[in-house]
Amino acid sequence: MTPMTPLAALLADLEAGRTTARALTETALARAAEGEGPRVFTRVDSDAALAAADVADGVRAAGLDGGPLLGLPVSVKDLFDVKGQVTLAGSVVRADEPPAAQDAPVVRRLRAAGAVIVGRTNMTEFAFSGVGLNPHYGTPKNPWDRATARIPGGSSSGAAVSVTDGMAAAAVGTDTGGSVRIPAGLCGLTGFKPTQARVTRDGCFPLSHAMDSVGPLAPTVDCCALLDAVLAGEAPQAVTPFPVQGLRLAVPRCLLLDDMDEAVSTAFETALHRLSQAGAQVDGVAAEDLIDEHYVARQAAQVTAEAWALHRATIGLAGERYDPRVRDRMKLAEAWSAADLVDMIHWRDAFIARWDRMAAPYDALIWPTLPTVAPAIAQVDADEAAYNTWNRLMLRNTRLVNVLDGCAVTLPVHRPGEAPVGLQVVGPRGHDRRVLEIAAGVEAVLAEMRRVP
Amino acid sequence: MTPMTPLAALLADLEAGRTTARALTETALARAAEGEGPRVFTRVDSDAALAAADVADGVRAAGLDGGPLLGLPVSVKDLFDVKGQVTLAGSVVRADEPPAAQDAPVVRRLRAAGAVIVGRTNMTEFAFSGVGLNPHYGTPKNPWDRATARIPGGSSSGAAVSVTDGMAAAAVGTDTGGSVRIPAGLCGLTGFKPTQARVTRDGCFPLSHAMDSVGPLAPTVDCCALLDAVLAGEAPQAVTPFPVQGLRLAVPRCLLLDDMDEAVSTAFETALHRLSQAGAQVDGVAAEDLIDEHYVARQAAQVTAEAWALHRATIGLAGERYDPRVRDRMKLAEAWSAADLVDMIHWRDAFIARWDRMAAPYDALIWPTLPTVAPAIAQVDADEAAYNTWNRLMLRNTRLVNVLDGCAVTLPVHRPGEAPVGLQVVGPRGHDRRVLEIAAGVEAVLAEMRRVP
Repeated sequence: MTPMTPLAALLADLEAGRTTARALTETALARAAEGEGPRVFTRVDSDAALAAADVADGVRAAGLDGGPLLGLPVSVKDLFDVKGQVTLAGSVVRADEPPAAQDAPVVRRLRAAGAVIVGRTNMTEFAFSGVGLNPHYGTPKNPWDRATARIPGGSSSGAAVSVTDGMAAAAVGTDTGGSVRIPAGLCGLTGFKPTQARVTRDGCFPLSHAMDSVGPLAPTVDCCALLDAVLAGEAPQAVTPFPVQGLRLAVPRCLLLDDMDEAVSTAFETALHRLSQAGAQVDGVAAEDLIDEHYVARQAAQVTAEAWALHRATIGLAGERYDPRVRDRMKLAEAWSAADLVDMIHWRDAFIARWDRMAAPYDALIWPTLPTVAPAIAQVDADEAAYNTWNRLMLRNTRLVNVLDGCAVTLPVHRPGEAPVGLQVVGPRGHDRRVLEIAAGVEAVLAEMRRVP
Repeated sequence: MTPMTPLAALLADLEAGRTTARALTETALARAAEGEGPRVFTRVDSDAALAAADVADGVRAAGLDGGPLLGLPVSVKDLFDVKGQVTLAGSVVRADEPPAAQDAPVVRRLRAAGAVIVGRTNMTEFAFSGVGLNPHYGTPKNPWDRATARIPGGSSSGAAVSVTDGMAAAAVGTDTGGSVRIPAGLCGLTGFKPTQARVTRDGCFPLSHAMDSVGPLAPTVDCCALLDAVLAGEAPQAVTPFPVQGLRLAVPRCLLLDDMDEAVSTAFETALHRLSQAGAQVDGVAAEDLIDEHYVARQAAQVTAEAWALHRATIGLAGERYDPRVRDRMKLAEAWSAADLVDMIHWRDAFIARWDRMAAPYDALIWPTLPTVAPAIAQVDADEAAYNTWNRLMLRNTRLVNVLDGCAVTLPVHRPGEAPVGLQVVGPRGHDRRVLEIAAGVEAVLAEMRRVP
């Protein structure tokens, strides 16, 4: 299994007998045992994976319909319940919790679709940061410029590197402020954050009931659409790329475009240019009055308050076992009043209505997934101020979609070998399939650009 | 217009030329000028009402389709926007606010349906109490035992008395913890609290974004269903009473059945007996583990926090102009933390799921709308402790439906001339039409009982 092979190609190879689920799984497991593997997974299920692979091969050999992911190695983030395993959520404080009595529904859906679950992927503790550092289980290094040891992004850090390094064909993560899209963007993957209601969060350790969502990280839009259909419990449908000729795209002019580094700015401008050349109407749209000081003050407040509500009792008992950067950021909400949270919740509804009016004339909005390429771990880890600054910067361009309860695909738009840069294609609540199809159209246009040296 | 005439009978009279909209409206206005009138309305729109009545008569004479309420006098609660009027919400602190630029959508729908808006009805200040006292505009007396001066119930106090006293054929109120059903129950009316999402709250001065709902008070279930369809923007449909033979009803055994006075207990038991006789299956169902100390602690917290968030700035500037009993109860939330509110919100979702599992085998749940008949105003108004005790008791059996985001009809089940007693018929979120039809079936069975001396 060549890392980053599209799922359709792997399925075709399986179908044609050019490989087997056992071979794919053995390769994935071998890679999980070396390199970044020990920091990518908090647990690898070799025996169960090989057994599932053998079953998949048997089902295929017998000509039975084994599901749309039959025989593909897939990783799941450490916060999904897997029957018989303790759901750690990247922490050590939950080690003495009882094992899960049953699989989370999304895990069950993956298995029912024929996927081979390779293991549980490492993450920011309790999913509460976008940079992806984990002091308990180590931090998997970004696949780009590995010599420098750059952040993978988080919180689905292990999910991203499990795919880039060929330890899984695709990964399932969660996204509360960007936790799928940040690591996908920084590592050169495609990631999809669905509308919250699209995928059940049952059996998924929560961070925020208001903003958690469940989505895939994979090599292409088509791969993400296939995974998304399985996660949503729908029958997979082929993605028909939306025509770029005549496509109306808006770039919101506001702080989402601030602080871009050279690599992001160049890749983003080139992508816009190429989309225009292909016949898309790409308009800059004023959004400064929407992304104002109220937005900046309130965007993260509800998640922090929910995290504190969920963890305050455990932090009271065993706060010293938390990553202090996670714990102390949760603790910010200790001083907040109920009325402050009410204001935040009411503001959010009004904000979504205002934003949707701005966005209504467009098929989708686009902006960079992250303002910069992945910084070095040492740079982020230098001190608390550096960590907090980088964390805010990494989350800045993705969190907006969670606040909107919208849906978004991040697509790689850098050239092979260069630093990964992601472009977000964003739609409103419930437009999940449409946004995937628009992203597939954009992906097709940009693929040519990405091949040109 | 005989007070409490069903809307269908008034419409038949209008259609047959036995009366006119002008005559109905003149009668309503004359009554509004005497008796409880000055305490029922914060504003009467005589000229506009007469003009609308003349238009309705003209439309009917011309044989045009003027809408399902053509020519019927209807009152609206003081918190709905009416173009050109200041939305006071039963307060004096809003007197200097600008007049509403347009009608609230529900007011527009009433007018489009041909209703004649008689005026704005008095209410508990900012809808934040169930007893219905208002120190600024006076308290309309309950129609029963008027000599004693009993509470009308609130917050839609004027709404109820406008109907019982024939100042309107029907009324539109709001219900955040029982504000439609409490006055309907205490005054002998039928009232309907819909699922929150059924009727738009635009242009309606808010108390709680989480729990506010908009519903009618009227003489019968059929009247409520007609009003509800208009408020929801639907085409009115005839209500087909659900067959009581084989109807499965549950009485939740928990604090909802505590503290009943003799009148309520007798009327409730008689109603249950009559429903059983008519072929309904009436089961007591254990609910003590649902209505537990968490429920008691959390049921009202979100509304109070939302009220405080909304009013804290104005209370800071002009708190002395508030009803102190409203202000001081809002102020309870000042000390609550954001995490406490998060716990309440999360608890609510889990509570609804648990309740709905308990209720699933039944067509509807039933319990008394209020544990007691209306107390004397003097008794409630005696001191702060008495006020708070009565307020909690009046809200106790209705607020649960708001917490559930369910729907409920309150039906009168006392005998004519006796103290009004209400029975609630309760269904889950979205079952609005079905609950109205079940209530119509129950109403038909109980009508016979209510006629027997």
